[in-house]
Amino acid sequence: MGYKITVIPGDGIGPEIVREAVKVLDAAGEKYGFRLDYTEVLMGGASIDVHGVPLTDEVIAQAKASDAVLMGSIGGDAATSPWYQLEPSKRPEAGLLKIRKELNLFANLRPAYLYSELKAACPLRSDIIGGGFDMMIMRELTGGLYFGERCTTEENGVRKAKDTLTYDENEIRRIAKRGFDIARKRRKKVTSVDKANVLDSSRLWRAVVEDVAKDYPDVELEHMLVDNCAMQLVRDPKQFDVILTENMFGDILSDEASMVTGSIGMLSSASLNETKFGLYEPSHGSAPDIAGKDLANPIATILSAAMMLRFSLDLDKAADAIEAAVKQVLTEGYRTGDIYSEGCKKVGTVEMGSLIAERV
Amino acid sequence: MGYKITVIPGDGIGPEIVREAVKVLDAAGEKYGFRLDYTEVLMGGASIDVHGVPLTDEVIAQAKASDAVLMGSIGGDAATSPWYQLEPSKRPEAGLLKIRKELNLFANLRPAYLYSELKAACPLRSDIIGGGFDMMIMRELTGGLYFGERCTTEENGVRKAKDTLTYDENEIRRIAKRGFDIARKRRKKVTSVDKANVLDSSRLWRAVVEDVAKDYPDVELEHMLVDNCAMQLVRDPKQFDVILTENMFGDILSDEASMVTGSIGMLSSASLNETKFGLYEPSHGSAPDIAGKDLANPIATILSAAMMLRFSLDLDKAADAIEAAVKQVLTEGYRTGDIYSEGCKKVGTVEMGSLIAERV
Ligand SMILES: CC(C)[C@H](C(=O)O)[C@@H](O)C(=O)O
Ligand SMILES: CC(C)[C@H](C(=O)O)[C@@H](O)C(=O)O
Repeated sequence: MGYKITVIPGDGIGPEIVREAVKVLDAAGEKYGFRLDYTEVLMGGASIDVHGVPLTDEVIAQAKASDAVLMGSIGGDAATSPWYQLEPSKRPEAGLLKIRKELNLFANLRPAYLYSELKAACPLRSDIIGGGFDMMIMRELTGGLYFGERCTTEENGVRKAKDTLTYDENEIRRIAKRGFDIARKRRKKVTSVDKANVLDSSRLWRAVVEDVAKDYPDVELEHMLVDNCAMQLVRDPKQFDVILTENMFGDILSDEASMVTGSIGMLSSASLNETKFGLYEPSHGSAPDIAGKDLANPIATILSAAMMLRFSLDLDKAADAIEAAVKQVLTEGYRTGDIYSEGCKKVGTVEMGSLIAERV
Repeated sequence: MGYKITVIPGDGIGPEIVREAVKVLDAAGEKYGFRLDYTEVLMGGASIDVHGVPLTDEVIAQAKASDAVLMGSIGGDAATSPWYQLEPSKRPEAGLLKIRKELNLFANLRPAYLYSELKAACPLRSDIIGGGFDMMIMRELTGGLYFGERCTTEENGVRKAKDTLTYDENEIRRIAKRGFDIARKRRKKVTSVDKANVLDSSRLWRAVVEDVAKDYPDVELEHMLVDNCAMQLVRDPKQFDVILTENMFGDILSDEASMVTGSIGMLSSASLNETKFGLYEPSHGSAPDIAGKDLANPIATILSAAMMLRFSLDLDKAADAIEAAVKQVLTEGYRTGDIYSEGCKKVGTVEMGSLIAERV
């Protein structure tokens, strides 16, 4: 069986990590009898360089016509790259926001878990991490402050800027359902994070989440204020199963959570719409400083590719095999520089990809 | 010399920790020859119980007529307290937001540092904390999402909620100046945190902060995105000196930072306006579960009282003496339950207050 995959190598380390993910996908295809047809397109800085804009309509059309999108990473060094001389709406990241909106990718899943093999890399004390932790962040991705109206005006010589945070109940309901669905397949606990002691949008969020929870009597729901959640992720990350939250809070908390695992180079993400379609990318950035040096860790992208097989193509066995292969190379002691610790075998981007592909 | 202090014991552990702070202030007054005249008033849940509202006009007038406000903590257990049956604008926390706005307390200073005596309580690995860390969070407190227009509407049966985030350049300039002023007395580095890749308000923030920085050529300025900052606080808190940020980001990051120190029961805060006037309160909450049990740690409030002497009353020597006394009791091994570790001497709220007062 064949599937159409749009591939966005992107910027920085994007192309080299995507290459390894494709290598691993092909190995899985051979073993499990499916074929992926890749169409490579430009986005972000790479697209600005060629087309003058970070995302063209052709790329959106191409993505829409495919079964899933696999992406590397977008953006460059804001301090030195000419892309950041452009006005904000023309910079690489604007392409990312646009594709999320155009493809209606409202559900952003970011797993944050501690690999037992990588406990030494976790910044937390060993008595806090204990047997490890494993949480899933479900971040709303097409609403809130990211997509509200904004403007900068000047009145009597005083500049003033305004952003708006809006949510309607349908937007909240659909992401909440996704959160509860995922929790049902996990440890059956949803922590909904908001700032309901201040924001109207958070109070609506809380009310709708409570409403949705009624259809999931088997799943425990707790509400947590965002400031408290930022504390609890450090104090005791084990308490979380699924964290369900709006766009901006999700941006902050998922980055914090991924750092708490100590291995952001290992963490995947999926951005889904109402259908099976999704965009898959590593949680980390484009790391322009190490681009092209065979230093980048391709595992986050490889695991994102596994999520793609699972969520968009229903190829669960192949996804399992990739995840198991990743686990195995770690157990065998192979490490890229970012997760290296003494006594392990240091390998580059390409070798890591090959090692995983061989073990699929 | 005499000063007028408005005292707000507040809710939960508030009254008992404020009592110890007053004990310590009086000891300092005796030694350094100043007199504080306290007027106790109600706010938060305590005010709701008596007046039906969390903050009366009389209390605002009383606070305005004084040199400074010393506060315990506000609020209760949202799950069980009848205060949270009220509509949001009538709950205890609404009093807190209102007093900040009415007294124009735009500059919120929250120190987050690691006491060398309490390193064992820090949730981070010992190689990350190294020789310790010491940062100051300068949070804007009267603007942004907290005080923007908000509404919840219904259109065709679909509820929709909206909050707005606005800043004008004057609001940004005054808090930025405070940030640079404080940095100048410290390690001369300001990390301004925003989300300039998405928000108009953040782009204005960044532009104005850069403008203000021109008057402080001796202070280093760096910009950091809020998601990255949430990561860096865990990865390497030592890199920060002063973090300068807007209201909501400051709420989240200061709580995260305080937890990273491992001793939130030790962290003070000051909220200042354009004059010397300020409101001083611990960074932690009202902990209703341990209220009235002589278990609360009064040190955060005692250190807030020291900040009051320093910032509002220019009594630097007395402030130094209180801080030194706190340090001394820690060195002598006295600990309340929250910071207790083996081999130390466990004491209650009252004894901790007395030990510090005796050493001033
Ligand atoms: C690049 C940026 C716009 C983006 C976001 O804030 O969503 C990134 O931080 C992310 O989390 O994917
Ligand atoms: C109680 C709440 C409204 C308040 C805030 O969000 O500012 C608190 O979290 C704080 O940080 O002082």
